Amino acid sequence: MNPIRLKLAIAYDGTNYQGWQVQKVGLGIQEVIERAISNIFQEQTRLHGSSRTDTGVHARAMIAHFDLPREKLKMPVSKIPLALNSQVPDDIRIMEAHAVANDFHARFSAKGKQYRYSVYNYHAHDPLLRNRAWHVPQKLDLEAMREATKHFVGKRDYAAFANNRNYEMESTVRTLHRCELRKQGRLLTFIIEGDGFLYKMCRGIVGTIIQVGQGRFSSKDIERMLEARDRRLAGMTAPAHGLVLWKVFY
Amino acid sequence: MNPIRLKLAIAYDGTNYQGWQVQKVGLGIQEVIERAISNIFQEQTRLHGSSRTDTGVHARAMIAHFDLPREKLKMPVSKIPLALNSQVPDDIRIMEAHAVANDFHARFSAKGKQYRYSVYNYHAHDPLLRNRAWHVPQKLDLEAMREATKHFVGKRDYAAFANNRNYEMESTVRTLHRCELRKQGRLLTFIIEGDGFLYKMCRGIVGTIIQVGQGRFSSKDIERMLEARDRRLAGMTAPAHGLVLWKVFY
Repeated sequence: MNPIRLKLAIAYDGTNYQGWQVQKVGLGIQEVIERAISNIFQEQTRLHGSSRTDTGVHARAMIAHFDLPREKLKMPVSKIPLALNSQVPDDIRIMEAHAVANDFHARFSAKGKQYRYSVYNYHAHDPLLRNRAWHVPQKLDLEAMREATKHFVGKRDYAAFANNRNYEMESTVRTLHRCELRKQGRLLTFIIEGDGFLYKMCRGIVGTIIQVGQGRFSSKDIERMLEARDRRLAGMTAPAHGLVLWKVFY
Repeated sequence: MNPIRLKLAIAYDGTNYQGWQVQKVGLGIQEVIERAISNIFQEQTRLHGSSRTDTGVHARAMIAHFDLPREKLKMPVSKIPLALNSQVPDDIRIMEAHAVANDFHARFSAKGKQYRYSVYNYHAHDPLLRNRAWHVPQKLDLEAMREATKHFVGKRDYAAFANNRNYEMESTVRTLHRCELRKQGRLLTFIIEGDGFLYKMCRGIVGTIIQVGQGRFSSKDIERMLEARDRRLAGMTAPAHGLVLWKVFY
């Protein structure tokens, strides 16, 4: 008999972890939940996440799946969050659990993702947001930034916005459906949605747009960066702690 | 010559402090800033806050004042936040500094205050809000809660909503101008504004309204609690970490 495949929606504060993935040094969120699964179901299993968030990056709804022999599932699926939450620290919460088809794959079935990035724009940081928003003290040109966001929407080659990885063998073309900038008082929120993301692509986009706001680049420069496909020509990578994996689409 | 009186607006994450006030045991926020003032201005001085927030309570804009001999102020007042922020941990931030008249008093000149209280209403807590919202997992009757808020607006005797203090010698009459409940997805926010607050009064009001939402009390019970003036008849005290001192009016 097929094992049962379970899908989890997981929220976490990434501050105290070395990212999602099981690490050689330091603790990954994946590992913490795998241990909880092992405690609750007496089964060693791999938890497959939709994305590998970096150290310090947060999630509102990371999606992950794992398999369990049917005889080991001795509770209604709706009780799984409560059971697993009793075994993980309070900076990780299982928000939902569902049984899914055996061909569902958290990573390969994903059709798209939404990330949100927060910036606190005031001379002093908000202490309650210190681990989840990037503090940018300088005055920013919001107009220019909004103009800049437009260049990132559509099917583009984002090679210039991918960090530290060798993409020579694979395509760096991705499609973004949204790149939006919202302002609520001192808090700026970027909403970035696309079919896929290269390594540190979101943070590269946000860092570059912030530098447009600081007058370091013009909106036209972005077009040139995209065309040149050279990471060195694009802007800075925004720090990890402002980023939240908000939603995964299937 | 008169000393110069300086007014500060201070934001803090109260998680790691024993409240605002200088403590015999544990660290008060007041003390941390007094030390910073002493480091920067070479002057031992008392910092007078508008309110004494409890352990775990946060502030977006606590107002406080202190006096400084004029010859010790060797920087523009606008640079004071940056100078003091270099001397305090990042869960405390001086957001603003202004010179004020010598008869201004952070506490006695205050005409009113606004507090905000956050509740996360879902079966699992949001890890990013775990230190700043109260987790209430049960379904709540929002209608009944909105009805309940109305009883707290106006000039009332709030004796039943003050904790652990002997108010026999002083009036327990206060006037609330607002007691409002907002809902954004799973997050409920109480906005409570008044000319003054008794000890733990805000948290008593919120705890009682939540219990109305859980069906433990009716809206009419609140009227009875207010009339009886007996703390034992009112509802529970909501936990400290959901509360933020939002604004002080002068």
